[in-house]
Amino acid sequence: MILRKDLLSRVERVFQRYGFDPIDTPALEYWETLAGKYGEEAENRLIWRFTDKWSGREYALRYDLTVPMARFVATHRDIPMPFKRYHIGPVWRHEEPQKGRYREFYQCDADIVGSPHPEADAEIVELVIDVIRELGFSSGFKVRLNDRRLLRGIFEEELGLGDAILPVYRAIDKLDKIGVEGVRGELLKLGLQDSTVDRIIDIISIQGDPGELLGEVARRYGGNKLVADAVKHLEGIIGLVDNSSVVVDLSLVRGLDYYTGPILEVVLDKPRIGSVAGGGRYDNLIGLFTSTQIPATGASIGIERIIDAGLELGLYTLKEKTVTEAMVVVLDKGAYSYAWRVARALRKAGVRTRIDLSMASPGVQRRKAQRLGIRLLVYVGAKEAEAGTATIYDTRTRERREARLEDAGRVAKEMLGT
Amino acid sequence: MILRKDLLSRVERVFQRYGFDPIDTPALEYWETLAGKYGEEAENRLIWRFTDKWSGREYALRYDLTVPMARFVATHRDIPMPFKRYHIGPVWRHEEPQKGRYREFYQCDADIVGSPHPEADAEIVELVIDVIRELGFSSGFKVRLNDRRLLRGIFEEELGLGDAILPVYRAIDKLDKIGVEGVRGELLKLGLQDSTVDRIIDIISIQGDPGELLGEVARRYGGNKLVADAVKHLEGIIGLVDNSSVVVDLSLVRGLDYYTGPILEVVLDKPRIGSVAGGGRYDNLIGLFTSTQIPATGASIGIERIIDAGLELGLYTLKEKTVTEAMVVVLDKGAYSYAWRVARALRKAGVRTRIDLSMASPGVQRRKAQRLGIRLLVYVGAKEAEAGTATIYDTRTRERREARLEDAGRVAKEMLGT
Repeated sequence: MILRKDLLSRVERVFQRYGFDPIDTPALEYWETLAGKYGEEAENRLIWRFTDKWSGREYALRYDLTVPMARFVATHRDIPMPFKRYHIGPVWRHEEPQKGRYREFYQCDADIVGSPHPEADAEIVELVIDVIRELGFSSGFKVRLNDRRLLRGIFEEELGLGDAILPVYRAIDKLDKIGVEGVRGELLKLGLQDSTVDRIIDIISIQGDPGELLGEVARRYGGNKLVADAVKHLEGIIGLVDNSSVVVDLSLVRGLDYYTGPILEVVLDKPRIGSVAGGGRYDNLIGLFTSTQIPATGASIGIERIIDAGLELGLYTLKEKTVTEAMVVVLDKGAYSYAWRVARALRKAGVRTRIDLSMASPGVQRRKAQRLGIRLLVYVGAKEAEAGTATIYDTRTRERREARLEDAGRVAKEMLGT
Repeated sequence: MILRKDLLSRVERVFQRYGFDPIDTPALEYWETLAGKYGEEAENRLIWRFTDKWSGREYALRYDLTVPMARFVATHRDIPMPFKRYHIGPVWRHEEPQKGRYREFYQCDADIVGSPHPEADAEIVELVIDVIRELGFSSGFKVRLNDRRLLRGIFEEELGLGDAILPVYRAIDKLDKIGVEGVRGELLKLGLQDSTVDRIIDIISIQGDPGELLGEVARRYGGNKLVADAVKHLEGIIGLVDNSSVVVDLSLVRGLDYYTGPILEVVLDKPRIGSVAGGGRYDNLIGLFTSTQIPATGASIGIERIIDAGLELGLYTLKEKTVTEAMVVVLDKGAYSYAWRVARALRKAGVRTRIDLSMASPGVQRRKAQRLGIRLLVYVGAKEAEAGTATIYDTRTRERREARLEDAGRVAKEMLGT
């Protein structure tokens, strides 16, 4: 939790720096609020859904933070637009728990509601890059960028795969994992014609920096309106963000039904644990809850995978066992109530302080403090009680200082350098 | 949320100052973990409980943070004792929503596990007083203190009300609300003998400062072992805490089944919205999950009622609409990508910054910033783009400063005084 809180507060700091404000929504939503938003797998298997015994109503634990936010915006139509909100909180999925898959995990979401412009998507991309950096991954990650309109325009309209498209998307989405030949095999298994498979492979193999790649796509399929719109939108994003970690990747699909425009995903070079952030534009979602379409775009960072990855890479450790800075060690039982006043003085000065609550011997008290890694030992015995002082020992620097009761807080803060 | 986050972080700061460390537990617990811990009303009505459609297992949303913590401690037997943890998070109750009663609300809990001593309870009392003060209630509140052993020793053993005790407790618990005569009426309605009712009323009417009151109780019922133990324990607490807001109140019962020793409750003088904090000692709860009894004591602060009360008293306001400090106002469309760099520079310096994402006119951008109460307006037009500068205007002081792009962050921080 100490590591986790540190990381979550770093994420929050970046969200705030980009001008996002916090909201919260309840864990429970009515089932009908979530129904039909996420696609088949979520709907039939992954959403924690239940019937309330008392009311007979169907409820569900929120599956992400985006749909609840859409409901929130739809029911608070007086919010000034663009509405930039962040939300850090748990979501629930009925997974078989395993590494990288959890039943309860935290999402850190930032969304911009009310702007249809590439500038909003660009801000989301830049924000995500900044968050990932602030979490300690200075490089060694890629932001994969695509657009649902490219997928629809090219594969559904130009290649005419409209009817059987979902398994095709599922196959090409695996490019990163199974390579070109793997994807070719999957597509052939679907019973597609060889020539169609060749065209699909050809498209998802287009390489180059974002500008070149988009140029090539425009040359080949620019006559398609969806493709032309998407290329222009993505060029707008790339033009502002201008960051070498961003790649356009035509094989990126992402699972959620509600995306309508640019989609993005952050993957680490190592370890290979799936995406650590993802997002995109969903211009039709809020309209499902109200009569007006309100465009929106955003991203979500998954802190559990970040922690798994950071621990594996040695960026993080779990060695910090307490946030406590000082332990008042009571040397004589008779000095306890004086020691209590010392603890009170330290706390008043803002020093995070423990005092013995087990009526233990001084040796045991000291060992307990050491085991937790508490830095300052504040010795209080008959001598200190008599003199109105405390003896503060810094286990890190081995410095030892006497302080009067009324100065103990200040002296401890000095020794801690805070 | 802005107010709420501020208040929760104040609570957290105090918890940490007292040497508590954070933990988190899942929202969902197996039903059997919660069953039999809270008493009849919770069990049969207030716990959100459901059968999982896929596994057939019974789950429940956590009802408080104490029972999950007890399960946690029982399953992590290597934790060094005393274990001082805090936990700030939502709990769920199947209430009819109304003022002061919510279906989802935050609890802020701090508990000390592993110490049977009054010193631990005293620390909890002092902590709670400090939290309430840090939340802005400098006086105007009372900490009511009682002990389950006093209730059991006096009413169940000495007065022999063992069998019919629950409705008696429910009646005397209302003393604060309905007064002595009200309680007398309720007790008579239960069919108790007049002389018994007189004795009950006599006991709960004992007045005086904590020391006097406990002395009187000891004189009358000190022969009872439960009473003698409780008086000694409470005297230990009072001796250390020594705070005029603490009263011993023999009519305090508290609803939860698991308390075994001292119990406490914080009530505000006004408004009358029920308790804003409560807690007590529960030495048998952890033993329900493991073979060893592990003593524990703690308290819980309810932030929603605190917010309701603070707003009513004018201690808090909801006027802050954003945490954003600066708005980059784009004066010429042609300067947008330069303005983007200005926003980037401000964010890099830690200034919480928005930039126009609606491609709106300068007037609209400015009005949006005003409506949110954003303090700094950072004007960027063709002139600034040409000169590599930004014009920063402080809406509070009306100061206006030119800054070079590379200094914009530093200048903005200076103007904000951060």
